[in-house]
Amino acid sequence: MKYLQGEPQNLPGNRALLATYEAEHFKFSVANGVATLTLNRPERKNPLTFDSYAELRDLFRAMAYADDIKAIVITGAGDNFCSGGDVHEIIGPLTKLDMPGLLAFTRMTGDVVKAMRACPQPVIAAIDGICAGAGSMLALGSDIRLGTERSKTAFLFTRVGLAGCDMGACALLPRVIGQGRAAELLYTGRSMAGAEGERWGFFNSLHAPEQLLAAAQALAQGLADGPTFAHGMTKKMLQQEWNMGVDEAIEAEAQAQAICMATNDFHRAYHAFVAKQKPVFEGD
Amino acid sequence: MKYLQGEPQNLPGNRALLATYEAEHFKFSVANGVATLTLNRPERKNPLTFDSYAELRDLFRAMAYADDIKAIVITGAGDNFCSGGDVHEIIGPLTKLDMPGLLAFTRMTGDVVKAMRACPQPVIAAIDGICAGAGSMLALGSDIRLGTERSKTAFLFTRVGLAGCDMGACALLPRVIGQGRAAELLYTGRSMAGAEGERWGFFNSLHAPEQLLAAAQALAQGLADGPTFAHGMTKKMLQQEWNMGVDEAIEAEAQAQAICMATNDFHRAYHAFVAKQKPVFEGD
Amino acid sequence: MKYLQGEPQNLPGNRALLATYEAEHFKFSVANGVATLTLNRPERKNPLTFDSYAELRDLFRAMAYADDIKAIVITGAGDNFCSGGDVHEIIGPLTKLDMPGLLAFTRMTGDVVKAMRACPQPVIAAIDGICAGAGSMLALGSDIRLGTERSKTAFLFTRVGLAGCDMGACALLPRVIGQGRAAELLYTGRSMAGAEGERWGFFNSLHAPEQLLAAAQALAQGLADGPTFAHGMTKKMLQQEWNMGVDEAIEAEAQAQAICMATNDFHRAYHAFVAKQKPVFEGD
Repeated sequence: MKYLQGEPQNLPGNRALLATYEAEHFKFSVANGVATLTLNRPERKNPLTFDSYAELRDLFRAMAYADDIKAIVITGAGDNFCSGGDVHEIIGPLTKLDMPGLLAFTRMTGDVVKAMRACPQPVIAAIDGICAGAGSMLALGSDIRLGTERSKTAFLFTRVGLAGCDMGACALLPRVIGQGRAAELLYTGRSMAGAEGERWGFFNSLHAPEQLLAAAQALAQGLADGPTFAHGMTKKMLQQEWNMGVDEAIEAEAQAQAICMATNDFHRAYHAFVAKQKPVFEGD
Repeated sequence: MKYLQGEPQNLPGNRALLATYEAEHFKFSVANGVATLTLNRPERKNPLTFDSYAELRDLFRAMAYADDIKAIVITGAGDNFCSGGDVHEIIGPLTKLDMPGLLAFTRMTGDVVKAMRACPQPVIAAIDGICAGAGSMLALGSDIRLGTERSKTAFLFTRVGLAGCDMGACALLPRVIGQGRAAELLYTGRSMAGAEGERWGFFNSLHAPEQLLAAAQALAQGLADGPTFAHGMTKKMLQQEWNMGVDEAIEAEAQAQAICMATNDFHRAYHAFVAKQKPVFEGD
Repeated sequence: MKYLQGEPQNLPGNRALLATYEAEHFKFSVANGVATLTLNRPERKNPLTFDSYAELRDLFRAMAYADDIKAIVITGAGDNFCSGGDVHEIIGPLTKLDMPGLLAFTRMTGDVVKAMRACPQPVIAAIDGICAGAGSMLALGSDIRLGTERSKTAFLFTRVGLAGCDMGACALLPRVIGQGRAAELLYTGRSMAGAEGERWGFFNSLHAPEQLLAAAQALAQGLADGPTFAHGMTKKMLQQEWNMGVDEAIEAEAQAQAICMATNDFHRAYHAFVAKQKPVFEGD
């Protein structure tokens, strides 16, 4: 199970330097605090492999300590987002694994979503074309999703004889589009069209394909230029409060927001307002 | 409290034979692994009675062990789904019960929904006309709902002086259509039109009345022909993860999906794909 | 921290007399069991102050014991709902507080929402114009929201360098409009238009500005004329079941509804039905 041992050889220990990280199994670049992660096997619609799963997991885990990255865009090369786990490179080998090996695999793929939800940077998915299987879960593990009319999103685990419960789908999808619509997509594996996804709240907005990436990056840049410590707290609390009672959530927010009121960004905003200026946030 | 003691006299002990079950208080038929359960007092818009509640509870409980039924359609005869608990046959007698008797009744009706959520078969409701009170809860207890433009769904408990919390409504409805819309329907008891229900995610789709049942059965047949063990796991995890944290849900799915990867259906799908054939699932 | 000590000097101990309460920091009037609470500093778009937060908290807490108020409308004077915490009166002083002082403030604001969710009366927000920051949380803490096309709702905490987790926003907003749409509004602080809010389920319906308050009051009057004990139970269970499992929620509803079946209103409804009359509910 080599892929599970694949500790990131080249992830920097210095947390300020993740912007220079050179990815092996996808493209990764950083500009002005915004990272763009591009799945990059366009001739196969950007499938995932054992190695790319592991690198995604390790990279998103490292993001928790990366001071130089403030927002993340995830997208796919060549008019498609991601076709999911490759049949030949993933499904075939899985049919030969024993139960500990199978569980090690499903835990690794789940760890990708756990790491996406645990890092403080908002993750914006830019989704064109095919978004299927594990690819649809990378989309769902993101905070915000921008799509195109022609995008086709399918939680198609059922088509390979598996259940809709993969990488957190049965928890996340109902909270995004509602329990009834989620059930249909997970049972049938059918494709959700772009307009349908926007209407249901899966996509925050639709864009022309040629403007999609720029729109996602502009949104990410706006967040990266904002109070990023506070954004990280927003993300943390959306996760923390997932299954709290309302009263417990309100107390948790009282604590979290009191912490944010002790930041310099809060003071910067106040003083800018008094001076009738636009605040310049620094994320501390 | 005879209706509570009504153990199913004629439910088969042999789990392979539920397809031959002869229902007493509704119509029940099975074809190609798809059961169609029809509430059948059309002259009264298919109200429920103590006896039909009890038989629904017992039948859905038996479904958990029924190997010969893979998907369930629930519908009503004669252009209506279900008018709920009958005023004369249910409400009148309830006004004469003491507290233990009342609680025994509310638990029995709740047990119908519990059993619908616990059985592994996806339940598809085909809803035309009136869908009211406990009838709306049979709809909501289903996994997928197909409706018609002219359908009228009302959680009208408040109209008989009761609360909106009946058979799980305050838990299920907000997750299907959102907390604000659910609150309005539950407080006011007002009727939700078909188009409104589709827009809000209560209905997965709307159909012409004369095509509704066929559409529900076709959808059910598609599921019954699929990897039914995996479908049962999807349903189980949608329930299990209802109030888990995200990380706990992802671990739960890692285990559940690893189990599904050990099934023959997963291998069948892979080998069919390699052979460029359509997989034939057998549910094991 | 005077505002925290501000125990309600003039809230009546006699729970039957809250209809005569004379508010200090907003308008408050009661007619036919319907209270109308109007934020009333229209020249500043009805901002909140330490004192008005405290009085809102105390008044909503007192509502739990107020027999003479059956439904509540909350609105703003002069074409706006509420601009939130005032920059000069709230934000400036906050920048000078130590951590215990900050936490005392965030807990007080959270207590307003806790009290809104804990009182048995359904709360209907009538929202025109600006609905921002803490104002958007008063809207979200309500049960039902009526809006106008021109309303602008913004969870704009991020604009002052704070997180989206304020007064329960990260718990409540995702359950009302879905997790993805909530994330976007909370991260960006952008304004949600009226039509968008209705489409997403934030608003139950939109109204012409000049008819908005009357529509909210008519809806409230309808509820106040209904089985108000049962309405209080509906509200309680929507809160209680927030993070229960489905089976536990169904049992909780079995108990809650059995209690309601022991009320006079349930009997009144039945006897009215038998007599082919409209039931007259009395809330007991």
